[in-house]
Amino acid sequence: MVDLVTLGEAMLRLSPPTGERLETARELDCQVGGAESNVAATAARLGLDTVWLSKLPDSALGRRVVSELRRHGAKPRVCWSEDGRQGTYYLEAGGAPRGSSVVYDRENAAVQTATPNELDTDAIEDAELFLTTGITPALSTTLFETTRSLLSTDTRTAFDLNYRGKLWSEAEARDAYEELLPAVDLLFAPERDVRSVLGYDGDPTALTARLREEYGCETVVLTRGEKGAFADTGDQTVEQSTIAAETVDAVGTGDAFVGGYLSQALRGESVERSLSYGAATAALKRTIAGDIAVVSEAEVERVLDDEYDGIDR
Amino acid sequence: MVDLVTLGEAMLRLSPPTGERLETARELDCQVGGAESNVAATAARLGLDTVWLSKLPDSALGRRVVSELRRHGAKPRVCWSEDGRQGTYYLEAGGAPRGSSVVYDRENAAVQTATPNELDTDAIEDAELFLTTGITPALSTTLFETTRSLLSTDTRTAFDLNYRGKLWSEAEARDAYEELLPAVDLLFAPERDVRSVLGYDGDPTALTARLREEYGCETVVLTRGEKGAFADTGDQTVEQSTIAAETVDAVGTGDAFVGGYLSQALRGESVERSLSYGAATAALKRTIAGDIAVVSEAEVERVLDDEYDGIDR
Amino acid sequence: MVDLVTLGEAMLRLSPPTGERLETARELDCQVGGAESNVAATAARLGLDTVWLSKLPDSALGRRVVSELRRHGAKPRVCWSEDGRQGTYYLEAGGAPRGSSVVYDRENAAVQTATPNELDTDAIEDAELFLTTGITPALSTTLFETTRSLLSTDTRTAFDLNYRGKLWSEAEARDAYEELLPAVDLLFAPERDVRSVLGYDGDPTALTARLREEYGCETVVLTRGEKGAFADTGDQTVEQSTIAAETVDAVGTGDAFVGGYLSQALRGESVERSLSYGAATAALKRTIAGDIAVVSEAEVERVLDDEYDGIDR
Amino acid sequence: MVDLVTLGEAMLRLSPPTGERLETARELDCQVGGAESNVAATAARLGLDTVWLSKLPDSALGRRVVSELRRHGAKPRVCWSEDGRQGTYYLEAGGAPRGSSVVYDRENAAVQTATPNELDTDAIEDAELFLTTGITPALSTTLFETTRSLLSTDTRTAFDLNYRGKLWSEAEARDAYEELLPAVDLLFAPERDVRSVLGYDGDPTALTARLREEYGCETVVLTRGEKGAFADTGDQTVEQSTIAAETVDAVGTGDAFVGGYLSQALRGESVERSLSYGAATAALKRTIAGDIAVVSEAEVERVLDDEYDGIDR
Amino acid sequence: MVDLVTLGEAMLRLSPPTGERLETARELDCQVGGAESNVAATAARLGLDTVWLSKLPDSALGRRVVSELRRHGAKPRVCWSEDGRQGTYYLEAGGAPRGSSVVYDRENAAVQTATPNELDTDAIEDAELFLTTGITPALSTTLFETTRSLLSTDTRTAFDLNYRGKLWSEAEARDAYEELLPAVDLLFAPERDVRSVLGYDGDPTALTARLREEYGCETVVLTRGEKGAFADTGDQTVEQSTIAAETVDAVGTGDAFVGGYLSQALRGESVERSLSYGAATAALKRTIAGDIAVVSEAEVERVLDDEYDGIDR
Amino acid sequence: MVDLVTLGEAMLRLSPPTGERLETARELDCQVGGAESNVAATAARLGLDTVWLSKLPDSALGRRVVSELRRHGAKPRVCWSEDGRQGTYYLEAGGAPRGSSVVYDRENAAVQTATPNELDTDAIEDAELFLTTGITPALSTTLFETTRSLLSTDTRTAFDLNYRGKLWSEAEARDAYEELLPAVDLLFAPERDVRSVLGYDGDPTALTARLREEYGCETVVLTRGEKGAFADTGDQTVEQSTIAAETVDAVGTGDAFVGGYLSQALRGESVERSLSYGAATAALKRTIAGDIAVVSEAEVERVLDDEYDGIDR
Repeated sequence: MVDLVTLGEAMLRLSPPTGERLETARELDCQVGGAESNVAATAARLGLDTVWLSKLPDSALGRRVVSELRRHGAKPRVCWSEDGRQGTYYLEAGGAPRGSSVVYDRENAAVQTATPNELDTDAIEDAELFLTTGITPALSTTLFETTRSLLSTDTRTAFDLNYRGKLWSEAEARDAYEELLPAVDLLFAPERDVRSVLGYDGDPTALTARLREEYGCETVVLTRGEKGAFADTGDQTVEQSTIAAETVDAVGTGDAFVGGYLSQALRGESVERSLSYGAATAALKRTIAGDIAVVSEAEVERVLDDEYDGIDR
Repeated sequence: MVDLVTLGEAMLRLSPPTGERLETARELDCQVGGAESNVAATAARLGLDTVWLSKLPDSALGRRVVSELRRHGAKPRVCWSEDGRQGTYYLEAGGAPRGSSVVYDRENAAVQTATPNELDTDAIEDAELFLTTGITPALSTTLFETTRSLLSTDTRTAFDLNYRGKLWSEAEARDAYEELLPAVDLLFAPERDVRSVLGYDGDPTALTARLREEYGCETVVLTRGEKGAFADTGDQTVEQSTIAAETVDAVGTGDAFVGGYLSQALRGESVERSLSYGAATAALKRTIAGDIAVVSEAEVERVLDDEYDGIDR
Repeated sequence: MVDLVTLGEAMLRLSPPTGERLETARELDCQVGGAESNVAATAARLGLDTVWLSKLPDSALGRRVVSELRRHGAKPRVCWSEDGRQGTYYLEAGGAPRGSSVVYDRENAAVQTATPNELDTDAIEDAELFLTTGITPALSTTLFETTRSLLSTDTRTAFDLNYRGKLWSEAEARDAYEELLPAVDLLFAPERDVRSVLGYDGDPTALTARLREEYGCETVVLTRGEKGAFADTGDQTVEQSTIAAETVDAVGTGDAFVGGYLSQALRGESVERSLSYGAATAALKRTIAGDIAVVSEAEVERVLDDEYDGIDR
Repeated sequence: MVDLVTLGEAMLRLSPPTGERLETARELDCQVGGAESNVAATAARLGLDTVWLSKLPDSALGRRVVSELRRHGAKPRVCWSEDGRQGTYYLEAGGAPRGSSVVYDRENAAVQTATPNELDTDAIEDAELFLTTGITPALSTTLFETTRSLLSTDTRTAFDLNYRGKLWSEAEARDAYEELLPAVDLLFAPERDVRSVLGYDGDPTALTARLREEYGCETVVLTRGEKGAFADTGDQTVEQSTIAAETVDAVGTGDAFVGGYLSQALRGESVERSLSYGAATAALKRTIAGDIAVVSEAEVERVLDDEYDGIDR
Repeated sequence: MVDLVTLGEAMLRLSPPTGERLETARELDCQVGGAESNVAATAARLGLDTVWLSKLPDSALGRRVVSELRRHGAKPRVCWSEDGRQGTYYLEAGGAPRGSSVVYDRENAAVQTATPNELDTDAIEDAELFLTTGITPALSTTLFETTRSLLSTDTRTAFDLNYRGKLWSEAEARDAYEELLPAVDLLFAPERDVRSVLGYDGDPTALTARLREEYGCETVVLTRGEKGAFADTGDQTVEQSTIAAETVDAVGTGDAFVGGYLSQALRGESVERSLSYGAATAALKRTIAGDIAVVSEAEVERVLDDEYDGIDR
Repeated sequence: MVDLVTLGEAMLRLSPPTGERLETARELDCQVGGAESNVAATAARLGLDTVWLSKLPDSALGRRVVSELRRHGAKPRVCWSEDGRQGTYYLEAGGAPRGSSVVYDRENAAVQTATPNELDTDAIEDAELFLTTGITPALSTTLFETTRSLLSTDTRTAFDLNYRGKLWSEAEARDAYEELLPAVDLLFAPERDVRSVLGYDGDPTALTARLREEYGCETVVLTRGEKGAFADTGDQTVEQSTIAAETVDAVGTGDAFVGGYLSQALRGESVERSLSYGAATAALKRTIAGDIAVVSEAEVERVLDDEYDGIDR
């Protein structure tokens, strides 16, 4: 029995060096990223037995994705496909007033045709928690159906709204969320998405209360960007502030938070502990290049113990 | 009035360093390549006024392609598209017994929907020669139609068979060639493709004679790999041997040959001169990383004068 | 008829990585920079038909300069020379209290002997605007004469004072400016140079009024570093503040401003629009490594629309 | 039940770029290598369920080793230690007349204190084959004892003599081999070591016959460098020639051979098939930078099918 | 007669790029660092005739250390050893809340067995000043004895407490300091070490007075991190504030301070001048990658003249 | 008293990566090279006490040259100049049929104005041997005079003809050689230069005999490219064949030969030993990137002992 199973797309991530443009750079750094695979890698690094489900092209590019996840201790269970591409995204880091820019190149990715019977559903049934995010159902109609189907097993489920404006409209996303959320036990909800996509308003307490009520989620964790996070379990609400970080690469911060949170919650730790662990993992992620929080449990603990001291020798 | 117009796809080319695998390399070298854009860049470098026609996504990736061709003096006239991808290919250099391997990732490239009225057909009408290759009609039905249409203007035409087994079957290619070749004046025909796709046999003289007869091509240049080239103009046949080269990167050798050949033929030079210029350009290309023959006229002349001397100081 | 012709030197720019010293670094990044070529590249990227005039050594180094400008869409018209060097400069990025340091190595550059009859003066006569800066006449007596001669065609002229203490004394510069400015229609005047070289004082209004009066310039754009810019057309004065930027590389900021300003002014846009476009282009430049503002019109518009949002996905 | 368990040291491998010296290079490429971990990674890539046993320092360096092996699909089961170093070796690639040079820096590596009860001996008992090499007992007295102890479980055993002159004298090695070999079922014996360390002479048949007789090994595979390999099972002897390769990096060739051989032998394939698979894997390894044969089963099959064709497109 | 002799270990320093982790980075930057060799290199660069004494393995790694120090003008006089390792340390740069992390790998370094008769004690006797730091006696019992012995020649001595918690406990360090300090003339004392290791308290005046009294040091320079420095010569006390710097690499800041201070003090400059020179050298160091302050006297002077101006051209 | 003093120019050497062109490469490798500085560095590495005399600009570029020579143990004694440039050369490695190409950029280098009274002539008078090459007098009239003057001290002299067609005509070189050679004791004469510049013919014996007779040289070492070397001391003639090498970088091979030869000859070793040591050093140089033979005495000995064995572990 594994602790956590996640389902989603992982893409190659190609980036020019800092200050260089995609138009002119000769060397691109190649990493692997995707919301659900980021969560899987982080959770595995922080001690959970974690499986990642997906469908990949049977090529060196697909093997690269599997290789990268394995390195962090996550266990990819992948349907290898003769058809479909390896999704890719180009990330150009910016700085004010030029934002970081993403060129998605994920059209016709193999994963978009993944059906439940191609995926290792036994893994889900044997898991303590099954997680996916709003990116997966946004990728294709097939994946929307697959997501709906897999959220309805007997296993406990988690979902992160993760709205992406480049994938679907707010209206499309809202309709999908409404269909999917009733099957979700633990909801990670970016406050921005709750307000703009779901059209809720009010303070965090109001937002989480309405989410719990409307969809029957057991726990809602509102992620609030620089304002931190706010969890509502029905029995209690807990606030968590953001831990300041010198940011090298902000991509994947939210996934690191979820991975850190789950690494504690799935071991039965308290919501307070889970939130603070998530916040520390997210802060560490920002200091590290790439989508994945390449951290150890000891490093997270040091952040929680506030032991930052410039250099340790 | 320009000298040469070419039409085709140009892709990003992503390669790990020598000896590294796509599965594990962190840095990928990013260049631009495509048969017809390689010919355009080479011809422009060697003094021809050259236009390249294509359709590209309106993104940093599409701009990169244009930027690269401009750098070599070719003039891109591009239809910018909101739809369709930037074609990409991953090139992993090998060595015996592991061949170099190519992972094409050109599905749904913007160019595949290019119709004649999206392209600058005036440029073709004003040109001395219009060239495309067998790769273009292989990419999509639309491009097959566009190719057929553009080969039928009053402008003189050139075509390189360029059979690619990853794009279509030999039977499909044969059917297409049969429809397109009657409109071709100058044919570059890889001997391998003539034998395997068209099913011809016999010695070079027999092959070129049959090609000229069957399709009415004015001149046929048989490209024979390590055996060199063989041209048949009806009036004369000319043989050209390959010029030995220390190979750094063999991709684009054939395109360099065509670019070198045309740089002379379009200025009214003899077939002998054109062939030897093509052979010298091709040999230089092999010493240079990337798809494009980044050479100067002076360098080609030095090869023809056999002035190689290790180092010039 | 082209929009803009600029005249000047372009140098190779060699830089060690951030934090490394010229004395010890093994790898140097090689780019191309020069005030007037920077303006040409930026203006071409922002939609103007732009020609750059210069004289370069007929070598791989000279070809590199041409190749780089072409890539951005500017059209180099160059006198190729057997004599004279390719100017070079070594840029070592610093940080307080160690300033960035520049080692110029431009002695005997080919451009220093450029005479009007070696340059494509027809291009100037056909252009809407001809621009050079105070660097060009400072490079050699010949270039001073060439500058004077080319400023006196019937074409509208622009000039940026661009005082460089490593090239000439303030007294020499002042004498030269006094001879050249009467032929200038649009003057870009760094406030620092106006005060220290020309010895003016007073507030911006006083400075520009005196410049317009003394030299008969139609429009004066005072560039004020962190204080922004101030334009005086006689009919109106317009203030523009600086747009804050996370600086990766400050070199070329002023040239980006000029290129951005001209991209609008030469299309008949208002002074307000031209100034704000210049400021946005300058801010973007600071986020990009190299002398040239590798930006698109869409990116400048986004800055003007204040759409910075960290990351767009 | 796993297919293969190996035991040994894995070191960080630090190398300057080709043509650079350790004395002056600024950048070192960092990989992971070790005879038994190389075999484990190769065997895992070629389809075996493989465990690698070792003892590592509980540091980022130790985690790097685990991360690298996991990436290839091998399963590290490691005793984490507070004491002892991470072994390291510096590899400077040479070319005639300057050989490649290795500076070992493996003194006091954590693995040198590994005792059987710190290692996962259950894994060995559950495995089809347990393998180690002559490097492991050469590293410390403790490891000699551990090796002896672990070779004596009921599991079938394999051993590669792998004599290293920098670790022990020929006399020391001979004594150790004499103690260990009686427990070995499948022996990989470099012909060079058999002659110089064991002092045998005669042709391959004589050498393997004597090894089988003296130590009771079931199968002996003599590895003969450029002369190929020779296997003797008692029932039959099989010769295998070396497959020619363009060598990028020769380190790890022997381990790739063993990994390839075992990937077939452990699935019940014939000795002929196992030998040829080993030879193909070894040839591929030589074209790849690093200690590990980063290859796929499909690539090995292509070598066996002699499908090398320069480039596949 | 030389100006300065220092004694200590110099290590290879291996670092991943900014934002990368030791666990995953492929390229490591290789430099050389060590407290006493850093002081020697800095002092030599700033005009002192400086000798560095140590013991190194007779290998490419040892030669690299010598090569690096020579480059800066320091004169290594080294005992070459067949035994013992080249000390190494892995430096992973961090940012809040993840501190920079150091993995020391200096166990059994050749220097740990260095005895006075292996070192060039004549150099010390001929020098104006002999310096070592608290790191050297912490490395081994032999080095503690060597340090004690060499501090007791007739040459004037300097010592920097340089407590390192990874090398010994506070109690061990205190005992050692108590034995060594009576032989020290010029003491550099990090305020943090004075408080935590020696257990002193009070304001800077109290700390230095007690140090002078207890151990008879002629001059005590208290180094106070961000609070600057404070010197007490008995005749006078002088305060020096820290000079703000944009930090690229903080390692070696203290050594740069000492090198800068000595470059003046040993030429008979005042304590004020020496302190401010030290502070300026330390600030420059922070802008430079690597352990060593790769600066020139002119650059230090420019900092003292407060001539920072962004860029000089 | 030093063993060897050399006089000449050292340039920065800037090279794109293998297979890349100067026109397009983004990164240039920066090293230091110059015939006489190469000899000095090699000789110092091989145990001679060696001084290098030159004149350099007082800039980071000049300091880089000094830093590089020091690193190898040579002692630069340099006249620092406010005027004049740092000479530079661009080296683009080629392969047949494209030769390696050199773009010299050494015009107005500071060294060109070096007069005897700016140089440390005492060093020459105290030395066992003073060496320069035909490059130095070719650089400027002043340097020709300086060379003539410094060759006429009482110190023994060595000279390498080193004809460079990019610096002067054969006729100019011949006239200069005729003036300088009478002061030369030990002449290194490339056979190619002897034939083409001096117009000699005949076999090696005839060439060296005539050189000894005409100019009174004590010893003549004819360097014959792939044919090896031939020395004539009057008493004896000795032949030396070339030692085969896998060439990474051929630049500096001749200087390595001279440095290796002198390292023995100046210690009183035989001509045979000196020639073979030179040949071994030259062969090693070819396996190493850069102008300088970064080798140790032990490595040269291993070549002489013919111990090449692929890899030593």
